[in-house]
Amino acid sequence: MSPPPELFAKVNNKSTSNRVPVRELPPSTGYSRLLTKKQLADMAFSVRDLSKYLGTVKIKMRVRKILIITKIWDKSTIIYTNHLVDWLLAIREAMPNFTIYVEDVLKENELFNEKQLLSADKSRHDRLKYWTSDLCEEHPQMFDLVITLGGDGTVLYTSRLFQRIVPPVLSFNLGSLGFLTKFDFANHQNIVRKMIDEGVIVSLRMRFECTVMKAIEDKDKSTTRNLGCEILDTVESEVTHEPGNTYSILNDVVVDRGPKGTMCRAELYVDDDHLTTVEADGVVIATPTGSTAYSLSAGGSLVHPDIQGMLVSPICAHSLSFRPLVVPDNAVLRVGVPYGARTTVWCSFDGKDRIELNEGDYVTISASRFPFPMIQNKRIGSDWFESLRETLNWNQRQQQKAYTNI
Amino acid sequence: MSPPPELFAKVNNKSTSNRVPVRELPPSTGYSRLLTKKQLADMAFSVRDLSKYLGTVKIKMRVRKILIITKIWDKSTIIYTNHLVDWLLAIREAMPNFTIYVEDVLKENELFNEKQLLSADKSRHDRLKYWTSDLCEEHPQMFDLVITLGGDGTVLYTSRLFQRIVPPVLSFNLGSLGFLTKFDFANHQNIVRKMIDEGVIVSLRMRFECTVMKAIEDKDKSTTRNLGCEILDTVESEVTHEPGNTYSILNDVVVDRGPKGTMCRAELYVDDDHLTTVEADGVVIATPTGSTAYSLSAGGSLVHPDIQGMLVSPICAHSLSFRPLVVPDNAVLRVGVPYGARTTVWCSFDGKDRIELNEGDYVTISASRFPFPMIQNKRIGSDWFESLRETLNWNQRQQQKAYTNI
Amino acid sequence: MSPPPELFAKVNNKSTSNRVPVRELPPSTGYSRLLTKKQLADMAFSVRDLSKYLGTVKIKMRVRKILIITKIWDKSTIIYTNHLVDWLLAIREAMPNFTIYVEDVLKENELFNEKQLLSADKSRHDRLKYWTSDLCEEHPQMFDLVITLGGDGTVLYTSRLFQRIVPPVLSFNLGSLGFLTKFDFANHQNIVRKMIDEGVIVSLRMRFECTVMKAIEDKDKSTTRNLGCEILDTVESEVTHEPGNTYSILNDVVVDRGPKGTMCRAELYVDDDHLTTVEADGVVIATPTGSTAYSLSAGGSLVHPDIQGMLVSPICAHSLSFRPLVVPDNAVLRVGVPYGARTTVWCSFDGKDRIELNEGDYVTISASRFPFPMIQNKRIGSDWFESLRETLNWNQRQQQKAYTNI
Amino acid sequence: MSPPPELFAKVNNKSTSNRVPVRELPPSTGYSRLLTKKQLADMAFSVRDLSKYLGTVKIKMRVRKILIITKIWDKSTIIYTNHLVDWLLAIREAMPNFTIYVEDVLKENELFNEKQLLSADKSRHDRLKYWTSDLCEEHPQMFDLVITLGGDGTVLYTSRLFQRIVPPVLSFNLGSLGFLTKFDFANHQNIVRKMIDEGVIVSLRMRFECTVMKAIEDKDKSTTRNLGCEILDTVESEVTHEPGNTYSILNDVVVDRGPKGTMCRAELYVDDDHLTTVEADGVVIATPTGSTAYSLSAGGSLVHPDIQGMLVSPICAHSLSFRPLVVPDNAVLRVGVPYGARTTVWCSFDGKDRIELNEGDYVTISASRFPFPMIQNKRIGSDWFESLRETLNWNQRQQQKAYTNI
Repeated sequence: MSPPPELFAKVNNKSTSNRVPVRELPPSTGYSRLLTKKQLADMAFSVRDLSKYLGTVKIKMRVRKILIITKIWDKSTIIYTNHLVDWLLAIREAMPNFTIYVEDVLKENELFNEKQLLSADKSRHDRLKYWTSDLCEEHPQMFDLVITLGGDGTVLYTSRLFQRIVPPVLSFNLGSLGFLTKFDFANHQNIVRKMIDEGVIVSLRMRFECTVMKAIEDKDKSTTRNLGCEILDTVESEVTHEPGNTYSILNDVVVDRGPKGTMCRAELYVDDDHLTTVEADGVVIATPTGSTAYSLSAGGSLVHPDIQGMLVSPICAHSLSFRPLVVPDNAVLRVGVPYGARTTVWCSFDGKDRIELNEGDYVTISASRFPFPMIQNKRIGSDWFESLRETLNWNQRQQQKAYTNI
Repeated sequence: MSPPPELFAKVNNKSTSNRVPVRELPPSTGYSRLLTKKQLADMAFSVRDLSKYLGTVKIKMRVRKILIITKIWDKSTIIYTNHLVDWLLAIREAMPNFTIYVEDVLKENELFNEKQLLSADKSRHDRLKYWTSDLCEEHPQMFDLVITLGGDGTVLYTSRLFQRIVPPVLSFNLGSLGFLTKFDFANHQNIVRKMIDEGVIVSLRMRFECTVMKAIEDKDKSTTRNLGCEILDTVESEVTHEPGNTYSILNDVVVDRGPKGTMCRAELYVDDDHLTTVEADGVVIATPTGSTAYSLSAGGSLVHPDIQGMLVSPICAHSLSFRPLVVPDNAVLRVGVPYGARTTVWCSFDGKDRIELNEGDYVTISASRFPFPMIQNKRIGSDWFESLRETLNWNQRQQQKAYTNI
Repeated sequence: MSPPPELFAKVNNKSTSNRVPVRELPPSTGYSRLLTKKQLADMAFSVRDLSKYLGTVKIKMRVRKILIITKIWDKSTIIYTNHLVDWLLAIREAMPNFTIYVEDVLKENELFNEKQLLSADKSRHDRLKYWTSDLCEEHPQMFDLVITLGGDGTVLYTSRLFQRIVPPVLSFNLGSLGFLTKFDFANHQNIVRKMIDEGVIVSLRMRFECTVMKAIEDKDKSTTRNLGCEILDTVESEVTHEPGNTYSILNDVVVDRGPKGTMCRAELYVDDDHLTTVEADGVVIATPTGSTAYSLSAGGSLVHPDIQGMLVSPICAHSLSFRPLVVPDNAVLRVGVPYGARTTVWCSFDGKDRIELNEGDYVTISASRFPFPMIQNKRIGSDWFESLRETLNWNQRQQQKAYTNI
Repeated sequence: MSPPPELFAKVNNKSTSNRVPVRELPPSTGYSRLLTKKQLADMAFSVRDLSKYLGTVKIKMRVRKILIITKIWDKSTIIYTNHLVDWLLAIREAMPNFTIYVEDVLKENELFNEKQLLSADKSRHDRLKYWTSDLCEEHPQMFDLVITLGGDGTVLYTSRLFQRIVPPVLSFNLGSLGFLTKFDFANHQNIVRKMIDEGVIVSLRMRFECTVMKAIEDKDKSTTRNLGCEILDTVESEVTHEPGNTYSILNDVVVDRGPKGTMCRAELYVDDDHLTTVEADGVVIATPTGSTAYSLSAGGSLVHPDIQGMLVSPICAHSLSFRPLVVPDNAVLRVGVPYGARTTVWCSFDGKDRIELNEGDYVTISASRFPFPMIQNKRIGSDWFESLRETLNWNQRQQQKAYTNI
């Protein structure tokens, strides 16, 4: 029995029963401004139901295709990748039809050493393959498992690769525990075997779907345009913005002042309300998963991944009273640059893809229908609390030196 | 159609269809330590379902019995109460069988002036009644509506009066908007009439159920007792603690060092884990509703009432890295004093009922099955965001003085 | 050459050249409210000049009388005290007229073991003596050196014992470095010998002088009294308050709500201005030395001991914008309870001597003329920065586990 | 009697008695790395002495040459400038030899309207002159007074114009009080007249002198270079860095990650110690004057301008325990990029002059010998506390709406 691909496909998009490639789906995300709050909330809700189910249940997986993601610029990690692939290809008895996908740039890499890997066994020629980002984007459901070797950055890269459906992700750290890398690579053989024998616990992590909305130039009346009216008013016959790129993010969206030394001034809307004007270095909109990352540096609370919220935290706010907020994840946030603003702002998604927002542009942020399934080490809650202590040194006091003798 | 009392009864306790008075229910809360996490989560979940339903829906109410709660020590408030009662008793045409309950101590109060109130109309003798705290505790479901006059403190007092089932609460402020007092008494006639004609929007606010667990003295082996083992171990044959009082709280439970100048040292458990040792002035465990109160002063984030979380914030922590947490509301928290501790701690519930916890004692905190139904002024989210600005002055900059002329 | 006692006497009070016992000085501190700001600033300034001089200079000491302060309730510390005294009494060759003073309660203590200590050498009978708090208070200048064994609490206790002139203090820790206990007792023999041979570096730490001013009851017109007018107005013919106790504190004065669950409401004055109304759990007024203690928990910055400032930090302020302040140490702060206040506040001095302030009472806080001379381990700045890292774990990241092998 | 120019010249540089233009002074600041701590401290100390003297004393000024600085891109400000100049030129009787200097770009500005200004009186042709930044840089001591019209930015611009000696600065705000703009332009005639008649109170604000030190490329052994060794080691025969620009700043130096999304990683040295590694968005080094600006947004305390300290506050630190520090202003701070760093950092001075620091580069920050003399409105302390409330809304609670009637 091998539920994951179908299960995820079903959850992620209910109309994919006939396996229409996700790429050909109508780009509904592009029009997120036009979605009603209800529609967005409904989608988020279906994610939640699944989250509750999977969060506390072990699932058995039949693994046939494994995709491996590593730090391809790091020599020692490539050597570990060689070890991992060699071992995975060797354990035929457990998983006969096992195929391993490695990033295409490694094919010619000497440290990865394809030649040595293939020499051990003839069948390996068919079972060692190479992936490209296009393959991940177009056929995410063909993979039963993603294994990452690296740090939290490698997991975020995985999230970028799989912007819609994501296969279950098993994340190995290389010596230092991260929030997203729970498994110690030193024990990878035991861990993978146990996973195959006993199944896995999966935590579905919420992601945000972010769409950049670019103001359409209006030659006639540009001086009188008002961002708030265009975002909040119900007149939808008139098209004021066109959707740009859409990003699924796992940690955070950051809107900041960019390279300039001046202040970031942005308008923040929650659903149909103007929440506040952000006068600060910037603002972080984080998932609970991201609450241990940049959001924390900005002063946000640590929020458990099971909480269904969106964290809004200013970065170096000018006002003394601008405290961090947590709002429900069925809200739609919009952050934009008012018409007539003297400066632009910059926006980044999980720390990448920095783009500039000009006057009238905004970015829409809402819960994504495409969560990120992380294989857990322990019960989910326990795992997270342990990470707080081990990764952040949270409320750990300097251990007192034992005073033994004089 | 008058859904509320039955509806709330049904929600609050599914076995009350035959109207067993809530008082006679088995005191399950007393044994919350013995409840499984699953059982508690199930209860919380049923609250959530209702919350989602009511939070966005208007309900029509047929109001027959109104209970009024005011600041009985404040002269001007008593005069307003007189006005309100007088007017309510007068609008017979709208609500023929209207009965008003006022706190019994007002019966003899000259400013309240029962004599004047009764003189207007003979029927008033039957329709002006007096309540006691016993009546509220024993027959909460007999009231269709509670009206409060005062500030947030008056609403917290209402929550204390109704520790289990709570009728819908309409809260008037007397000039300064509070987080729990949305309606301006200056417009009370319009507000009440509109409510009767058009129905109300109710926000079900989560409360926490807190049970004090007192360590049973054990003469034989007291030196070797360990609080963590007694809380977390599964040996339930042995009874180590007996339940003390149980409190339903709307804002927060505070565990602090009490009158002493020394540090509070308490152990904090989440479900089956020892989360951390609190070395601080104390710790605040707050509902999202309470996130705008003491929790905020302690550095916690502002958390929207729809978020299903519990806020844990240290008060003046000794460790630089003890940052506030938000954990899911299906968790069971326990805060206790380790055996052998040199000092006790004190615990208060919504700022009242301060009690001392001695070594081995602890308090259990979990989501309550008995939420607090607040009548809202606007859409729920909007209401809350507006309160942030008006009540907390959140991210409001000093308005720049217009510079007009020289 | 033995400068210290004279030097300190001279600094602490310029008129003591003829050795008038400090006790007989006019109790000027009792009337600090009546001192002009100029007078207070002048005194503080003389402290500063000395501070600059001593802070970077080694002084040679001729030590004849050593006072030892230990944790008399802690068994192992008493044993260490025995070792220390035994060794100090034995090194006659270095310091022939050496007399050791130990707290009088140790005379009969079996672990301290006077009998064993005296048995080694006849001269010891004259050279082991016992001190009382009265002796410290009345004849502080007779001691050349104070040695403390314990933690920061023992050093604070030393400051309490010597409320005016303080001999140089050498503070040993018993295994865990503190901000005030720089020397490791494991090396005490080397440290003391080196100190005698090479001299010591002394850091003069600023203390605050705090005087409690009790409102004198005024039967005629009590309803119209106004604290601000009484504190700030220049009419000094009329006596409204009488001085109570005066305390020299090394770390902090804390004004808080005391045992009650209600808010602390106090008025804070700086020199001739009403600075603000404190609505909070309380307020900490700390010396730079105290900036690493309670003030830090309350959110204050870490302030180097050479900074001539007073830290004002609210504890859990109700206002979002009440940020910590640092004001110059030539300011006079006053914290008081307004007339007509519904609650009292409590005040503690270095965490001790908790007293209640009733309506109209206030406490005056200003730089003390009697600093606390701490013998340093290294250059002063360096010492402090090292303590930040070692004692507070300041900006120390969890060390990454080395990843060795797979 | 006209003390200021001489006085300031004397203070600012003791060897200028023969009026050597400051420009020709040996560029001692360029070698600040080679200055001993003692030398720097001595200079700072002379500043302090003056500060104490002037801070509490009124000085009479004989004003002959006034330099006016305004926002030349702001139309209404230019009109106010016209009014001000017109009035100043008209009050001959008070100040016969009065010459006004206005920025050269205004000469042709229609709103400034030179023609109208000159038409009133023949003598005006000689008394209305134009300044350039070169004139300010080369002959700062020729001006008796600087008047600024605008906000705090205009005052910071004044500090940039006068990098060494600064004439006394009178700062008018245009309607909204700033920390550096105390005087309301609406009353400018009274203020200037009173200043001439009664003299002024001057507050000497500390500035920091910041020198950029660029690593000299070393082709032979670049792989083994260590920034800490090069900064802290006493081998001065070997020249490892060459001085770049030097800046006098009034508010703050900010070292941050610049346009990149990555973390800033910089090494921070205090005198001869490596204080810590900054892993953050950046770090703010602020004067007490700057404590109400960016430093406050980053979490620093509010520090009174009379405090002789340097504020070090991380911006969004990665470590939970990286709390803001205040160190004495006789310290020399150095912030640099370690050799081998993967990213560069950016440095700005009072929010301007952003430059990139590459590996091995660092910036030296120490108290400047050239303070900034601000004319005060009231007693200095009082002025600052009032600004806290008016400009920052510090601990001001939302005023309660009076509840009048029902």
